[in-house]
Amino acid sequence: MIPAVIATSSCDSLRDVSVPGTTRPGGRTARVAEAVFAAAVDELSSRDYADISVESIAARAGVHKTTVYRRWGSKAELISQVLAGAAGAAIPVPDTGRLEEDLRALARAVQALLSDPGRAAITRALIVGGLTSPEIAGVMSQFWAGRLAAISVIVDRATARGQLPAGTDPAALMHAVAAPLYYELLVTRVPVTERDADRGAAAALAAALAGVFVD
Amino acid sequence: MIPAVIATSSCDSLRDVSVPGTTRPGGRTARVAEAVFAAAVDELSSRDYADISVESIAARAGVHKTTVYRRWGSKAELISQVLAGAAGAAIPVPDTGRLEEDLRALARAVQALLSDPGRAAITRALIVGGLTSPEIAGVMSQFWAGRLAAISVIVDRATARGQLPAGTDPAALMHAVAAPLYYELLVTRVPVTERDADRGAAAALAAALAGVFVD
Repeated sequence: MIPAVIATSSCDSLRDVSVPGTTRPGGRTARVAEAVFAAAVDELSSRDYADISVESIAARAGVHKTTVYRRWGSKAELISQVLAGAAGAAIPVPDTGRLEEDLRALARAVQALLSDPGRAAITRALIVGGLTSPEIAGVMSQFWAGRLAAISVIVDRATARGQLPAGTDPAALMHAVAAPLYYELLVTRVPVTERDADRGAAAALAAALAGVFVD
Repeated sequence: MIPAVIATSSCDSLRDVSVPGTTRPGGRTARVAEAVFAAAVDELSSRDYADISVESIAARAGVHKTTVYRRWGSKAELISQVLAGAAGAAIPVPDTGRLEEDLRALARAVQALLSDPGRAAITRALIVGGLTSPEIAGVMSQFWAGRLAAISVIVDRATARGQLPAGTDPAALMHAVAAPLYYELLVTRVPVTERDADRGAAAALAAALAGVFVD
């Protein structure tokens, strides 16, 4: 759900993003994908989206640009997959068995990312980019749709357990968890605290239990 | 609460903003203030914040720049007052006697402004400006603080009527109403509908009644 997960180049853990569609984790294909993803994270951390190219990513990864084009097609598609992979690595989908815990874990992970100065800056840059460039807007839309699909399982599981009213719209509930945190980051510009995260999760849960998000 | 209330220059109603501190509504001082505010709205509608100056506003209003400096001190202070006045004119504080109605009226007014292409574009531009320019960030912070103080009376009245748990934090509840609408405008980029407004108001109310916003 979070573009903020793009790490600064010193954060090695975020380079270990899973590579979708890789069948042999230790194979050459996987190694190339890992190198390209790590290079893309480094590029995103150090310059504007507009200044990044498939060529610059390929050069940093030590692979030929045609390798990148063949596999990902375009810079936009590659960056979108990088964002999704990094988000998945930094904010795994919680599965505690309790909806309240899952929502709080999710909100706290978002809050932790948005209160990290470097990652919050990248998030703001990508959102500003999305508001001013149609191509970045496309990347971000694709990223958010994928993230939403991944985390909606929290809502589906809770509904199946009878912890939520039948027919609760996963997107509405997930957006309700994230919206207050992004509102503070982008609009009111006050620091986003752990208390804000807990409050946002509790508010979203109260609304969901009251049936507000039933379609 | 809404920078989106800055009108396109063809929207005359938004020029009729109230002028704080004016003791003689028909007097010369009031006429000058109205002309300056209208000129500032026209400037904001037609060019970037960075390209606007006290001089350009004064010239458009047909007054001397020293008149503007003497009264408002700086471009930032003037624009902040213009935003606050325009927001107050376009989104008057609802007072229906019922909290649920007040919150829905507020959310719908925000939604109407954010779904107007011209005004949504100005809102996005000011938010992008706030994320990239410390001076615009200062203007926006001052604007939001003033708007929050104005609309918090909705919460105070409801608490006094016993319609909300004692100790409910007005800022938390007001932010909960606005956050989902801004999240859609800025992050997910889906059109903000009247249904979103009603849902956001209902979600904020359910959370408030559950005591989530008690300090």
